[in-house]
Amino acid sequence: MEEKEISQAVIGRLPRYFRYLGELKDQGIERVSSQELSDIMKVTASQIRQDLNNFGGFGQQGYGYNVEYLFQEIGKILGLDQNHNLIIIGAGNLGQALVNYGNFERRGFLFKGVFDSNPRLHGKRIRDKTVQPMENIKGFVQANDIDIAVLTIPKTEAEKVAEELVGYGIKGIWNFAHVDLNVPEEVQVENVHLSDSLMKLAYNISRSRKEGDGA
Amino acid sequence: MEEKEISQAVIGRLPRYFRYLGELKDQGIERVSSQELSDIMKVTASQIRQDLNNFGGFGQQGYGYNVEYLFQEIGKILGLDQNHNLIIIGAGNLGQALVNYGNFERRGFLFKGVFDSNPRLHGKRIRDKTVQPMENIKGFVQANDIDIAVLTIPKTEAEKVAEELVGYGIKGIWNFAHVDLNVPEEVQVENVHLSDSLMKLAYNISRSRKEGDGA
Repeated sequence: MEEKEISQAVIGRLPRYFRYLGELKDQGIERVSSQELSDIMKVTASQIRQDLNNFGGFGQQGYGYNVEYLFQEIGKILGLDQNHNLIIIGAGNLGQALVNYGNFERRGFLFKGVFDSNPRLHGKRIRDKTVQPMENIKGFVQANDIDIAVLTIPKTEAEKVAEELVGYGIKGIWNFAHVDLNVPEEVQVENVHLSDSLMKLAYNISRSRKEGDGA
Repeated sequence: MEEKEISQAVIGRLPRYFRYLGELKDQGIERVSSQELSDIMKVTASQIRQDLNNFGGFGQQGYGYNVEYLFQEIGKILGLDQNHNLIIIGAGNLGQALVNYGNFERRGFLFKGVFDSNPRLHGKRIRDKTVQPMENIKGFVQANDIDIAVLTIPKTEAEKVAEELVGYGIKGIWNFAHVDLNVPEEVQVENVHLSDSLMKLAYNISRSRKEGDGA
Protein backbone atom coordinates (compact mmCIF):
# COMPACT_ATOMS: atom_id res chain seq x y z
CA MET A 1 0.00 0.00 0.00
CA GLU A 2 1.27 3.44 -0.95
CA GLU A 3 1.64 5.73 2.02
CA LYS A 4 0.59 9.37 1.82
CA GLU A 5 1.44 12.13 4.25
CA ILE A 6 -1.04 11.66 7.08
CA SER A 7 -1.78 14.30 9.69
CA GLN A 8 -0.72 13.70 13.30
CA ALA A 9 -4.37 14.15 14.30
CA VAL A 10 -5.35 11.14 12.21
CA ILE A 11 -2.33 9.19 13.47
CA GLY A 12 -3.38 9.99 17.01
CA ARG A 13 -6.75 8.36 16.35
CA LEU A 14 -5.37 5.19 14.70
CA PRO A 15 -4.54 3.30 17.91
CA ARG A 16 -8.14 3.77 18.97
CA TYR A 17 -9.42 2.34 15.66
CA PHE A 18 -6.96 -0.48 16.07
CA ARG A 19 -8.23 -1.18 19.59
CA TYR A 20 -11.91 -1.24 18.60
CA LEU A 21 -11.27 -3.31 15.49
CA GLY A 22 -9.30 -5.77 17.61
CA GLU A 23 -12.28 -6.12 19.93
CA LEU A 24 -14.66 -6.71 17.01
CA LYS A 25 -12.24 -9.27 15.61
CA ASP A 26 -12.05 -11.04 19.00
CA GLN A 27 -15.85 -11.20 18.96
CA GLY A 28 -15.71 -12.93 15.58
CA ILE A 29 -17.28 -10.02 13.70
CA GLU A 30 -16.22 -9.95 10.04
CA ARG A 31 -17.70 -6.76 8.64
CA VAL A 32 -18.58 -3.42 10.16
CA SER A 33 -20.16 -0.32 8.64
CA SER A 34 -18.89 3.17 9.35
CA GLN A 35 -22.23 3.78 11.11
CA GLU A 36 -21.72 0.80 13.42
CA LEU A 37 -18.15 1.88 14.16
CA SER A 38 -19.49 5.38 14.76
CA ASP A 39 -21.97 4.07 17.34
CA ILE A 40 -19.41 2.14 19.37
CA MET A 41 -16.59 4.67 19.05
CA LYS A 42 -18.70 7.82 19.60
CA VAL A 43 -17.15 9.49 16.58
CA THR A 44 -19.22 10.63 13.60
CA ALA A 45 -19.49 8.18 10.70
CA SER A 46 -18.21 10.87 8.35
CA GLN A 47 -15.10 11.35 10.49
CA ILE A 48 -14.48 7.61 10.33
CA ARG A 49 -14.90 7.52 6.55
CA GLN A 50 -12.55 10.50 6.17
CA ASP A 51 -9.93 9.02 8.47
CA LEU A 52 -9.95 5.61 6.82
CA ASN A 53 -9.95 7.12 3.33
CA ASN A 54 -6.42 8.29 4.12
CA PHE A 55 -5.35 4.69 3.72
CA GLY A 56 -7.11 3.90 0.47
CA GLY A 57 -10.10 1.76 -0.28
CA PHE A 58 -10.75 -0.31 2.80
CA GLY A 59 -14.51 0.01 2.55
CA GLN A 60 -17.12 -0.48 -0.11
CA GLN A 61 -20.27 1.60 -0.30
CA GLY A 62 -23.13 -0.21 1.43
CA TYR A 63 -20.95 -3.18 2.27
CA GLY A 64 -18.87 -1.92 5.16
CA TYR A 65 -15.31 -2.62 6.16
CA ASN A 66 -13.62 -5.99 6.43
CA VAL A 67 -12.66 -6.04 10.12
CA GLU A 68 -9.71 -8.41 9.86
CA TYR A 69 -8.23 -6.62 6.84
CA LEU A 70 -8.66 -3.15 8.30
CA PHE A 71 -7.19 -4.32 11.61
CA GLN A 72 -4.14 -5.76 9.85
CA GLU A 73 -3.63 -2.72 7.62
CA ILE A 74 -3.87 -0.23 10.47
CA GLY A 75 -1.49 -2.47 12.40
CA LYS A 76 0.98 -2.27 9.52
CA ILE A 77 0.63 1.51 9.32
CA LEU A 78 1.33 1.68 13.06
CA GLY A 79 4.45 -0.41 12.54
CA LEU A 80 2.99 -3.29 14.55
CA ASP A 81 3.74 -5.84 11.84
CA GLN A 82 7.30 -5.90 13.15
CA ASN A 83 8.48 -6.44 16.70
CA HIS A 84 10.04 -3.69 18.74
CA ASN A 85 12.72 -4.43 21.32
CA LEU A 86 12.46 -2.26 24.42
CA ILE A 87 14.46 -1.57 27.52
CA ILE A 88 13.08 0.10 30.64
CA ILE A 89 15.26 2.50 32.55
CA GLY A 90 13.93 2.94 36.05
CA ALA A 91 12.83 -0.15 37.97
CA GLY A 92 10.51 1.61 40.42
CA ASN A 93 6.79 0.90 40.66
CA LEU A 94 6.01 2.45 37.28
CA GLY A 95 8.77 0.56 35.50
CA GLN A 96 7.63 -2.65 37.15
CA ALA A 97 4.03 -1.99 36.18
CA LEU A 98 5.04 -1.65 32.54
CA VAL A 99 7.17 -4.82 32.54
CA ASN A 100 4.34 -6.76 34.16
CA TYR A 101 1.67 -5.53 31.76
CA GLY A 102 1.44 -8.41 29.31
CA ASN A 103 -0.63 -6.64 26.68
CA PHE A 104 2.32 -4.78 25.19
CA GLU A 105 3.95 -8.07 24.18
CA ARG A 106 0.83 -9.14 22.34
CA ARG A 107 1.35 -6.09 20.13
CA GLY A 108 4.99 -6.90 19.47
CA PHE A 109 6.59 -4.68 22.11
CA LEU A 110 9.14 -6.93 23.76
CA PHE A 111 10.76 -5.84 27.02
CA LYS A 112 14.31 -7.12 26.80
CA GLY A 113 16.00 -5.51 29.79
CA VAL A 114 15.47 -3.40 32.89
CA PHE A 115 18.02 -0.97 34.31
CA ASP A 116 18.26 1.20 37.40
CA SER A 117 20.87 3.42 39.00
CA ASN A 118 20.00 2.18 42.49
CA PRO A 119 22.44 -0.62 43.45
CA ARG A 120 19.90 -2.04 45.89
CA LEU A 121 17.68 -2.97 42.95
CA HIS A 122 20.42 -4.70 40.96
CA GLY A 123 19.73 -8.41 40.67
CA LYS A 124 16.06 -8.00 41.60
CA ARG A 125 13.76 -10.09 39.39
CA ILE A 126 10.85 -8.40 37.61
CA ARG A 127 8.81 -10.95 35.71
CA ASP A 128 11.56 -12.85 33.86
CA LYS A 129 14.06 -9.97 33.88
CA THR A 130 16.87 -9.07 36.24
CA VAL A 131 17.50 -5.41 37.05
CA GLN A 132 20.90 -4.36 35.73
CA PRO A 133 23.16 -1.39 36.47
CA MET A 134 23.15 1.61 34.14
CA GLU A 135 26.68 0.83 32.95
CA ASN A 136 25.29 -2.19 31.09
CA ILE A 137 22.90 -0.16 28.93
CA LYS A 138 25.33 0.65 26.14
CA GLY A 139 26.43 -2.92 25.47
CA PHE A 140 22.92 -4.28 25.94
CA VAL A 141 21.33 -1.88 23.44
CA GLN A 142 23.87 -2.80 20.82
CA ALA A 143 23.81 -6.56 21.45
CA ASN A 144 20.02 -6.85 21.53
CA ASP A 145 18.94 -4.58 18.70
CA ILE A 146 16.98 -2.34 21.07
CA ASP A 147 15.01 0.37 19.29
CA ILE A 148 12.89 1.83 22.10
CA ALA A 149 13.92 2.99 25.58
CA VAL A 150 11.29 3.63 28.22
CA LEU A 151 12.27 6.27 30.77
CA THR A 152 10.63 5.86 34.16
CA ILE A 153 13.24 7.85 36.06
CA PRO A 154 13.16 11.28 37.73
CA LYS A 155 13.46 14.29 35.46
CA THR A 156 16.84 15.18 36.94
CA GLU A 157 18.33 12.00 35.44
CA ALA A 158 16.24 11.83 32.28
CA GLU A 159 18.02 14.48 30.19
CA LYS A 160 21.44 12.93 30.64
CA VAL A 161 20.25 9.38 30.07
CA ALA A 162 18.33 10.40 26.93
CA GLU A 163 21.46 11.99 25.52
CA GLU A 164 23.44 8.80 26.10
CA LEU A 165 20.70 6.66 24.53
CA VAL A 166 20.77 8.80 21.41
CA GLY A 167 24.48 8.11 21.19
CA TYR A 168 23.80 4.36 21.36
CA GLY A 169 21.51 4.61 18.33
CA ILE A 170 18.12 4.27 20.00
CA LYS A 171 15.21 5.09 17.62
CA GLY A 172 12.50 6.09 20.06
CA ILE A 173 12.01 7.16 23.67
CA TRP A 174 8.81 6.57 25.60
CA ASN A 175 9.25 9.25 28.21
CA PHE A 176 7.47 9.20 31.56
CA ALA A 177 9.90 11.68 33.14
CA HIS A 178 8.28 15.02 33.76
CA VAL A 179 10.49 16.94 31.38
CA ASP A 180 10.51 17.66 27.65
CA LEU A 181 13.63 16.00 26.25
CA ASN A 182 15.98 17.65 23.78
CA VAL A 183 16.90 14.99 21.26
CA PRO A 184 17.79 15.11 17.56
CA GLU A 185 14.88 15.16 15.12
CA GLU A 186 15.45 11.58 13.94
CA VAL A 187 14.82 10.21 17.43
CA GLN A 188 11.10 9.93 18.15
CA VAL A 189 9.83 10.88 21.59
CA GLU A 190 6.39 10.09 22.94
CA ASN A 191 5.70 11.73 26.28
CA VAL A 192 3.38 10.49 28.99
CA HIS A 193 3.24 13.49 31.29
CA LEU A 194 0.98 12.19 34.03
CA SER A 195 0.83 15.46 35.96
CA ASP A 196 -0.25 17.33 32.83
CA SER A 197 -3.05 14.84 32.34
CA LEU A 198 -4.19 15.13 35.95
CA MET A 199 -4.17 18.94 35.74
CA LYS A 200 -6.33 18.81 32.63
CA LEU A 201 -8.80 16.67 34.55
CA ALA A 202 -8.78 19.20 37.41
CA TYR A 203 -9.46 21.99 34.93
CA ASN A 204 -12.42 20.18 33.41
CA ILE A 205 -13.87 19.45 36.86
CA SER A 206 -13.48 23.04 37.96
CA ARG A 207 -15.03 24.36 34.73
CA SER A 208 -17.92 21.93 34.92
CA ARG A 209 -18.53 22.97 38.54
CA LYS A 210 -18.66 26.65 37.52
CA GLU A 211 -21.06 25.89 34.68
CA GLY A 212 -23.19 23.95 37.14
CA ASP A 213 -23.34 27.06 39.36
CA GLY A 214 -24.58 29.04 36.35
CA ALA A 215 -21.43 31.18 36.48
CA MET B 1 -10.67 37.19 36.49
CA GLU B 2 -13.49 36.75 33.99
CA GLU B 3 -13.35 33.40 32.26
CA LYS B 4 -14.06 33.11 28.55
CA GLU B 5 -14.69 29.96 26.57
CA ILE B 6 -11.22 28.54 25.98
CA SER B 7 -10.49 25.87 23.41
CA GLN B 8 -9.44 22.40 24.57
CA ALA B 9 -6.27 22.83 22.51
CA VAL B 10 -5.25 25.81 24.65
CA ILE B 11 -6.31 23.99 27.84
CA GLY B 12 -4.17 21.06 26.79
CA ARG B 13 -1.15 23.37 26.64
CA LEU B 14 -1.75 25.06 30.01
CA PRO B 15 -0.18 22.34 32.20
CA ARG B 16 2.99 22.72 30.18
CA TYR B 17 3.05 26.49 30.70
CA PHE B 18 2.39 25.85 34.36
CA ARG B 19 5.28 23.41 34.54
CA TYR B 20 7.78 25.74 32.85
CA LEU B 21 6.66 28.76 34.85
CA GLY B 22 7.04 26.70 38.03
CA GLU B 23 10.61 25.91 37.06
CA LEU B 24 11.40 29.57 36.35
CA LYS B 25 9.83 30.50 39.69
CA ASP B 26 11.94 27.85 41.48
CA GLN B 27 15.01 29.41 39.85
CA GLY B 28 14.03 32.78 41.32
CA ILE B 29 13.26 34.35 37.94
CA GLU B 30 10.70 37.15 38.23
CA ARG B 31 9.97 38.18 34.66
CA VAL B 32 10.06 36.38 31.35
CA SER B 33 9.41 37.59 27.81
CA SER B 34 7.34 35.60 25.32
CA GLN B 35 10.56 35.20 23.32
CA GLU B 36 12.41 33.67 26.29
CA LEU B 37 9.49 31.36 27.02
CA SER B 38 9.46 30.49 23.33
CA ASP B 39 13.12 29.49 23.45
CA ILE B 40 12.79 27.18 26.42
CA MET B 41 9.39 25.72 25.47
CA LYS B 42 10.09 25.29 21.73
CA VAL B 43 6.80 26.96 20.85
CA THR B 44 6.63 30.13 18.76
CA ALA B 45 6.47 33.40 20.69
CA SER B 46 3.33 34.31 18.80
CA GLN B 47 1.63 31.08 19.90
CA ILE B 48 2.54 31.91 23.49
CA ARG B 49 1.16 35.44 23.21
CA GLN B 50 -2.04 34.14 21.64
CA ASP B 51 -2.50 31.43 24.26
CA LEU B 52 -1.88 33.74 27.20
CA ASN B 53 -4.09 36.46 25.71
CA ASN B 54 -6.99 34.12 26.34
CA PHE B 55 -6.60 34.94 30.00
CA GLY B 56 -6.39 38.70 29.76
CA GLY B 57 -3.52 41.08 30.23
CA PHE B 58 -0.76 39.13 31.91
CA GLY B 59 1.99 40.70 29.88
CA GLN B 60 3.03 44.20 29.00
CA GLN B 61 4.65 45.10 25.70
CA GLY B 62 8.42 45.11 26.06
CA TYR B 63 8.26 44.26 29.73
CA GLY B 64 7.41 40.55 29.69
CA TYR B 65 5.31 38.44 32.00
CA ASN B 66 5.42 38.37 35.77
CA VAL B 67 6.38 34.73 36.40
CA GLU B 68 4.83 34.37 39.85
CA TYR B 69 1.57 36.04 38.84
CA LEU B 70 1.22 34.06 35.63
CA PHE B 71 2.03 30.83 37.47
CA GLN B 72 -0.64 31.55 40.08
CA GLU B 73 -3.27 32.58 37.53
CA ILE B 74 -2.75 29.54 35.33
CA GLY B 75 -2.88 27.44 38.49
CA LYS B 76 -6.25 28.99 39.35
CA ILE B 77 -7.55 28.37 35.84
CA LEU B 78 -6.47 24.75 36.16
CA GLY B 79 -8.37 24.48 39.44
CA LEU B 80 -5.14 23.99 41.39
CA ASP B 81 -6.00 26.71 43.89
CA GLN B 82 -8.18 24.17 45.64
CA ASN B 83 -7.28 20.69 46.82
CA HIS B 84 -8.67 17.58 45.17
CA ASN B 85 -9.33 14.43 47.16
CA LEU B 86 -8.55 11.24 45.25
CA ILE B 87 -8.98 7.55 45.67
CA ILE B 88 -7.11 4.93 43.71
CA ILE B 89 -8.91 1.79 42.65
CA GLY B 90 -6.40 -0.90 41.80
CA ALA B 91 -3.41 -1.41 44.11
CA GLY B 92 -1.14 -3.10 41.58
CA ASN B 93 2.21 -1.68 40.48
CA LEU B 94 0.67 1.23 38.63
CA GLY B 95 -1.62 2.20 41.51
CA GLN B 96 1.33 1.97 43.90
CA ALA B 97 3.48 4.08 41.60
CA LEU B 98 0.86 6.84 41.62
CA VAL B 99 0.42 6.78 45.41
CA ASN B 100 4.18 6.93 45.89
CA TYR B 101 4.72 9.79 43.46
CA GLY B 102 4.90 12.76 45.81
CA ASN B 103 4.64 15.48 43.17
CA PHE B 104 0.88 15.18 42.83
CA GLU B 105 0.40 16.23 46.46
CA ARG B 106 2.45 19.36 45.90
CA ARG B 107 -0.19 20.36 43.35
CA GLY B 108 -3.06 19.72 45.72
CA PHE B 109 -3.98 16.20 44.59
CA LEU B 110 -4.36 14.29 47.83
CA PHE B 111 -4.59 10.50 47.75
CA LYS B 112 -7.00 9.61 50.51
CA GLY B 113 -7.62 5.92 49.99
CA VAL B 114 -6.59 2.86 47.99
CA PHE B 115 -8.92 0.01 47.08
CA ASP B 116 -8.55 -3.35 45.41
CA SER B 117 -10.76 -6.34 44.71
CA ASN B 118 -7.96 -8.79 45.54
CA PRO B 119 -8.36 -9.92 49.19
CA ARG B 120 -4.65 -10.73 49.39
CA LEU B 121 -3.88 -7.03 49.06
CA HIS B 122 -6.30 -5.91 51.77
CA GLY B 123 -4.43 -4.49 54.74
CA LYS B 124 -1.24 -3.97 52.73
CA ARG B 125 0.38 -0.58 53.41
CA ILE B 126 1.23 1.71 50.51
CA ARG B 127 2.97 4.82 51.74
CA ASP B 128 0.68 5.85 54.62
CA LYS B 129 -2.43 4.15 53.23
CA THR B 130 -3.95 0.72 53.82
CA VAL B 131 -5.51 -1.13 50.89
CA GLN B 132 -9.24 -1.54 51.47
CA PRO B 133 -11.84 -3.83 49.91
CA MET B 134 -14.09 -2.50 47.16
CA GLU B 135 -17.16 -2.63 49.42
CA ASN B 136 -15.71 0.29 51.38
CA ILE B 137 -15.60 2.65 48.40
CA LYS B 138 -19.13 3.98 48.68
CA GLY B 139 -18.93 5.01 52.33
CA PHE B 140 -15.38 6.31 51.92
CA VAL B 141 -16.20 8.56 48.96
CA GLN B 142 -19.08 10.11 50.84
CA ALA B 143 -17.27 10.50 54.18
CA ASN B 144 -14.09 11.97 52.68
CA ASP B 145 -15.42 14.36 50.05
CA ILE B 146 -13.65 12.47 47.26
CA ASP B 147 -13.97 14.16 43.88
CA ILE B 148 -11.56 12.14 41.71
CA ALA B 149 -11.24 8.37 41.30
CA VAL B 150 -8.17 6.91 39.64
CA LEU B 151 -8.81 3.62 37.85
CA THR B 152 -5.78 1.34 37.60
CA ILE B 153 -7.78 -1.85 37.11
CA PRO B 154 -8.29 -4.13 34.10
CA LYS B 155 -10.75 -2.98 31.48
CA THR B 156 -13.11 -5.84 32.31
CA GLU B 157 -13.73 -4.31 35.76
CA ALA B 158 -13.46 -0.66 34.82
CA GLU B 159 -16.88 -0.15 33.21
CA LYS B 160 -18.80 -1.50 36.18
CA VAL B 161 -16.71 0.34 38.76
CA ALA B 162 -17.04 3.61 36.83
CA GLU B 163 -20.80 3.26 36.80
CA GLU B 164 -20.84 2.75 40.57
CA LEU B 165 -18.55 5.73 41.14
CA VAL B 166 -20.87 7.95 39.15
CA GLY B 167 -23.67 6.84 41.47
CA TYR B 168 -21.57 7.88 44.48
CA GLY B 169 -21.27 11.40 43.09
CA ILE B 170 -17.66 11.34 41.88
CA LYS B 171 -16.76 14.39 39.71
CA GLY B 172 -13.86 13.06 37.69
CA ILE B 173 -12.24 9.80 36.65
CA TRP B 174 -8.57 9.48 35.77
CA ASN B 175 -8.77 6.34 33.69
CA PHE B 176 -5.78 4.08 33.06
CA ALA B 177 -7.96 1.12 32.06
CA HIS B 178 -7.70 0.36 28.37
CA VAL B 179 -11.33 1.14 27.60
CA ASP B 180 -13.34 4.26 26.83
CA LEU B 181 -15.81 4.69 29.68
CA ASN B 182 -19.45 5.55 29.20
CA VAL B 183 -20.30 8.07 31.89
CA PRO B 184 -22.76 10.98 32.04
CA GLU B 185 -21.59 14.27 30.55
CA GLU B 186 -21.20 15.98 33.93
CA VAL B 187 -18.53 13.47 34.99
CA GLN B 188 -15.13 14.35 33.55
CA VAL B 189 -12.91 11.57 32.26
CA GLU B 190 -9.24 11.92 31.43
CA ASN B 191 -7.79 8.83 29.79
CA VAL B 192 -4.21 7.64 29.94
CA HIS B 193 -4.22 4.92 27.31
CA LEU B 194 -0.65 3.69 27.52
CA SER B 195 -0.91 1.25 24.62
CA ASP B 196 -2.24 3.99 22.34
CA SER B 197 0.73 6.14 23.25
CA LEU B 198 3.19 3.33 22.61
CA MET B 199 1.59 2.56 19.23
CA LYS B 200 1.90 6.20 18.23
CA LEU B 201 5.61 6.00 19.06
CA ALA B 202 5.91 2.84 16.94
CA TYR B 203 4.22 4.62 14.04
CA ASN B 204 6.58 7.57 14.23
CA ILE B 205 9.62 5.27 14.36
CA SER B 206 8.41 3.27 11.38
CA ARG B 207 7.62 6.42 9.38
CA SER B 208 10.96 7.98 10.22
CA ARG B 209 12.73 4.76 9.16
CA LYS B 210 10.93 4.82 5.78
CA GLU B 211 11.83 8.47 5.25
CA GLY B 212 15.42 7.63 6.13
CA ASP B 213 15.37 4.98 3.40
CA GLY B 214 14.27 7.63 0.95
CA ALA B 215 10.98 5.77 0.35
